[in-house]
Amino acid sequence: MTLLVVGSTAFDTIETPHGKAEKCLGGSSTYFSLAARLFTSVRLVSVVGQDFPDAHRKLLADRGVDLDGVETKPGKTFAWHGRYSADMNSRETLDVQLNTFGDFEPKVPQGFRDSPFVFLANGAPATQLSVVEQMDAPRFVVADTMDLWIETARDGLLALLQRIDGVIVNDGEVKQLTGKSNLIAAGKAALELGPKLVIVKKGEHGCFVFSNFFHYALPAYPTEHVVDPTGAGDSFAGGFMGYLANCDQLSLANMQRAVAYGTVTASLTVEGFGVDRLAHADRGMVERRFGELMQFVSGV
Amino acid sequence: MTLLVVGSTAFDTIETPHGKAEKCLGGSSTYFSLAARLFTSVRLVSVVGQDFPDAHRKLLADRGVDLDGVETKPGKTFAWHGRYSADMNSRETLDVQLNTFGDFEPKVPQGFRDSPFVFLANGAPATQLSVVEQMDAPRFVVADTMDLWIETARDGLLALLQRIDGVIVNDGEVKQLTGKSNLIAAGKAALELGPKLVIVKKGEHGCFVFSNFFHYALPAYPTEHVVDPTGAGDSFAGGFMGYLANCDQLSLANMQRAVAYGTVTASLTVEGFGVDRLAHADRGMVERRFGELMQFVSGV
Repeated sequence: MTLLVVGSTAFDTIETPHGKAEKCLGGSSTYFSLAARLFTSVRLVSVVGQDFPDAHRKLLADRGVDLDGVETKPGKTFAWHGRYSADMNSRETLDVQLNTFGDFEPKVPQGFRDSPFVFLANGAPATQLSVVEQMDAPRFVVADTMDLWIETARDGLLALLQRIDGVIVNDGEVKQLTGKSNLIAAGKAALELGPKLVIVKKGEHGCFVFSNFFHYALPAYPTEHVVDPTGAGDSFAGGFMGYLANCDQLSLANMQRAVAYGTVTASLTVEGFGVDRLAHADRGMVERRFGELMQFVSGV
Repeated sequence: MTLLVVGSTAFDTIETPHGKAEKCLGGSSTYFSLAARLFTSVRLVSVVGQDFPDAHRKLLADRGVDLDGVETKPGKTFAWHGRYSADMNSRETLDVQLNTFGDFEPKVPQGFRDSPFVFLANGAPATQLSVVEQMDAPRFVVADTMDLWIETARDGLLALLQRIDGVIVNDGEVKQLTGKSNLIAAGKAALELGPKLVIVKKGEHGCFVFSNFFHYALPAYPTEHVVDPTGAGDSFAGGFMGYLANCDQLSLANMQRAVAYGTVTASLTVEGFGVDRLAHADRGMVERRFGELMQFVSGV
């Protein structure tokens, strides 16, 4: 089934111990779309400036991403410049130019409003909520968020959580959101805030999944070749939502498999700079890694 | 089968956000023994001072730990005082008095030398090696180590790793030992140093197991009630070695189960101050948690 994503499109300049990539295609919705398209058809709602090149549009369109919801506004595209630490477990933002993304008011095209699966990439909770309100009757809506919104737009975020099915956060964010320092306690407490599903990303340590019906832990895919962690979280979300959108049922078993597909998709992303590796991935690579991850979990 | 452990016995003073415990029974070999005795018979080689109370001996002996290898020397017992950070993921040592443990030269009693399973708790590699050399023909020898020895006694440690079957280290230690910043690469590189089995502990994130035949990831038991992390690593080792010593075969499946039993045993330890919870644990509690951990891993 069709999957709608709303989020940023950007030019990223990325420095990691493995090198530097300048002004490459980035943004949460880009990583998400390129991950999700491995599993299902994707509709993209985003905004770019007049400097956004046709080559980038073509890269997305060639992979089946419907760009009818990508608005081009006067001015420049959102630009980000970051540098990772030696172990790549933390990063410093050197420059951010919000540009046309600064006052992004997502408009979901009429033809997109029947999308049953919706992902709200990181953004102001009020903006995310405005998307929910534009949809007809989505079956499964999941949002990402970040420390900034938990701190500065807490009420808006809590209102959003009442309206959606799932939330994807990292370990620090779920502790901040719930005020619990124990991760298991924090995950359970987040469920009390509304969503039926809470996914806690732990980077190289994998993820936890909390629902009222099951708790589940999955390690990260055991990659030895992390080149650039940018977009790992959005690729995870893309693999998760993409796989799920293609399932007949939202069963617990399918949710679990979807988490593993998200994990695998993220592992491809981090092995190249920007979207390079992800854009050239195919379903065969994904399935091979899915098998390897299952073996890593089951051991013998 | 019988399991021999060689390591420290101590008085611990512990401060965590949940309170303070003064001069309680501690030390690597104590936690290990109290964990392992849940599965098999344990022989202890350690040293204490004349101030070591009979009550502590009784606590161990009552749980089937054979204390024939515990030497009492003139002077005081090793004493440690530490304080944990608010999230309990790091700790500061406020005071260490090595006392009688300072020049510990473990002497394995004649009647202990036929022990098929041996655990060398954290200590100077040369001291650990001296134990290996006192044994008849052990079937499975595993050692713990720490950053101090990796830095100051690297050659001795590398020599030890050639003589033993397995090593248990934490994530920082395996990176330091191998010079690899990626944990998967580090685990594999550690295998090249000699041991057939490398277990990498990641605290609240569980552990990785590396062998030439399989790689395996297991999350920590999802406890919400961490009161005092002291001894978690040694309890993990005790549960792992204790379960394995009681198995007929050193099969991969048994190794995997042993890692899960170690995980579960450690989870009991951290729910109380010092050895309190561990000393009062029984096999029923362990089995219940083993089932819960398996459910956490398999999800539905």
